[in-house]
Amino acid sequence: MSQYKHVALIGLGLLASSISLAMRRADMAARITGTARSKETQETALEIGLVDAVFDTAAEAVKGADLVILCVPVGVMGAIAEEIAPHLSEGCTVSDVGSVKRAVAEAIRPHMPDGVHLIPAHPMAGTEKSGPEAGFASLFDNRWLLITPLPESDHTAVKRLVDFWTTLGSNVEIMEIEHHDLVAAVISHTPHLIAYTMVGVADGMNRVAKTEVVNYSAAGFRDFTRIAASDPTMWRDVFLNNKDATLEVLGRFTEELFALQRAIRLGDGDFLFDYFTRTRDIRRSIIDAGQDTEAADFGRTKSEK
Amino acid sequence: MSQYKHVALIGLGLLASSISLAMRRADMAARITGTARSKETQETALEIGLVDAVFDTAAEAVKGADLVILCVPVGVMGAIAEEIAPHLSEGCTVSDVGSVKRAVAEAIRPHMPDGVHLIPAHPMAGTEKSGPEAGFASLFDNRWLLITPLPESDHTAVKRLVDFWTTLGSNVEIMEIEHHDLVAAVISHTPHLIAYTMVGVADGMNRVAKTEVVNYSAAGFRDFTRIAASDPTMWRDVFLNNKDATLEVLGRFTEELFALQRAIRLGDGDFLFDYFTRTRDIRRSIIDAGQDTEAADFGRTKSEK
Repeated sequence: MSQYKHVALIGLGLLASSISLAMRRADMAARITGTARSKETQETALEIGLVDAVFDTAAEAVKGADLVILCVPVGVMGAIAEEIAPHLSEGCTVSDVGSVKRAVAEAIRPHMPDGVHLIPAHPMAGTEKSGPEAGFASLFDNRWLLITPLPESDHTAVKRLVDFWTTLGSNVEIMEIEHHDLVAAVISHTPHLIAYTMVGVADGMNRVAKTEVVNYSAAGFRDFTRIAASDPTMWRDVFLNNKDATLEVLGRFTEELFALQRAIRLGDGDFLFDYFTRTRDIRRSIIDAGQDTEAADFGRTKSEK
Repeated sequence: MSQYKHVALIGLGLLASSISLAMRRADMAARITGTARSKETQETALEIGLVDAVFDTAAEAVKGADLVILCVPVGVMGAIAEEIAPHLSEGCTVSDVGSVKRAVAEAIRPHMPDGVHLIPAHPMAGTEKSGPEAGFASLFDNRWLLITPLPESDHTAVKRLVDFWTTLGSNVEIMEIEHHDLVAAVISHTPHLIAYTMVGVADGMNRVAKTEVVNYSAAGFRDFTRIAASDPTMWRDVFLNNKDATLEVLGRFTEELFALQRAIRLGDGDFLFDYFTRTRDIRRSIIDAGQDTEAADFGRTKSEK
């Protein structure tokens, strides 16, 4: 399978910069072009060598590319697709890294010319940092990359994209697009919303000072603040574009929370103990699957000091 | 201020073992005795040098001690207090590390003989690990220790306990007991319940396989699993014994969650964006206060592989 010769990165944040660094690490020979909305990001990306050339517009950046990856918030994917459409090369693949797949596919698809392969994708990896300097080459190592081909997607083009991500370090899985959005709602979107909410509650308690929340955060709270520190624009777009699945999972969440709340109110210790025992097992599985570290407190307790 | 000469640790889990190791690190000359319910824990504690002597009962372990620290689940504090009461030395201090202070004080207080100082305390530190081998000497470094004296608490005895914890590495704060329970509900108890709930929801979704939850957990979910991996008995007791404050905070949480859920349903992007921007600030404050690491993803991404 031939590698891509020219990859265009639209948007130069955490994911795009990590893609570039992982490509360099794998000695991919491809030319990398890119664009970003802010002049500052453009300059930084060029300076630190993320791209071989940077452009003011997506239209210019995609010229001649055989792979275009849209690394922009979900809400602007449609507008970008419309902008780049006339400038795409015959046979090129257009993919993305959006956290939502149905809405993104629907936003992009109408603009895609014949002979261009639209293949949505979503790396299950990230950190709470944003911007071109947030990336690192190992971000995708042993993390999963979900590809959600459309019915019309060309098998050879899909295979080529799978190889690309495998070379970057990912485990690749092909998934049906609706199922992706439900899975993402469970393991990513709803947890983020819950974390944002908990942080908002703590911040808004009149009877508890902000310094108290901050100083004593090591007792559990701070683990919510990391995921609640992610890019607001990105997450706004995620929730607006994965409404149904998120609302479904939120409904389940509220139901479960009320059951636990009722057990607390009634003093049902057995219910609580059983629940807390069951949830403990899943962490073991995550560690065994290499998706987290076994070090207590994420190893934070040892390294900090 | 004279140091304690003999410290008795009742219960030999994460916190007791960390107290012992932090005492050794500080070259405290005190004799350390201890007890634990299981024979295996008793033997391990002796073997790895956490205690100078181990006993089958709390009654024996406290004999001659001038500081007794109850490191057992909140639900058994009362029974332990009753057991040790006749064996406490005149002038000794009885403290604890329970996450709840009003209920613990009420459970212990009726049993305390005259001339014994009951001074409840709560270290705002911990990991998800349990048992005598989970401890480490730096657990309390730069973490906060809340002391909630009772109206009758002797000032000199309180000062002595403050010095003890300061020597172990803690920042010590004196706090009113009801306020402690509210603060703990906000920054520790409710976040733990939310995390348990989210993990329970993911585990119980019929349409999403457990392998999917596990494999893709790096997208946010796994941060919930660490705190949902803590000791089930301890947490059952916390919720049963801090019912009012937890239910109050849960009420606020549900209210906020519904506001966000409504914004998602109505497509109110501005509301979501503003909320997510506000919550981002608090993380910065936590990092500035030295209560977390600035490394992306808790530094996990760099250290893992």
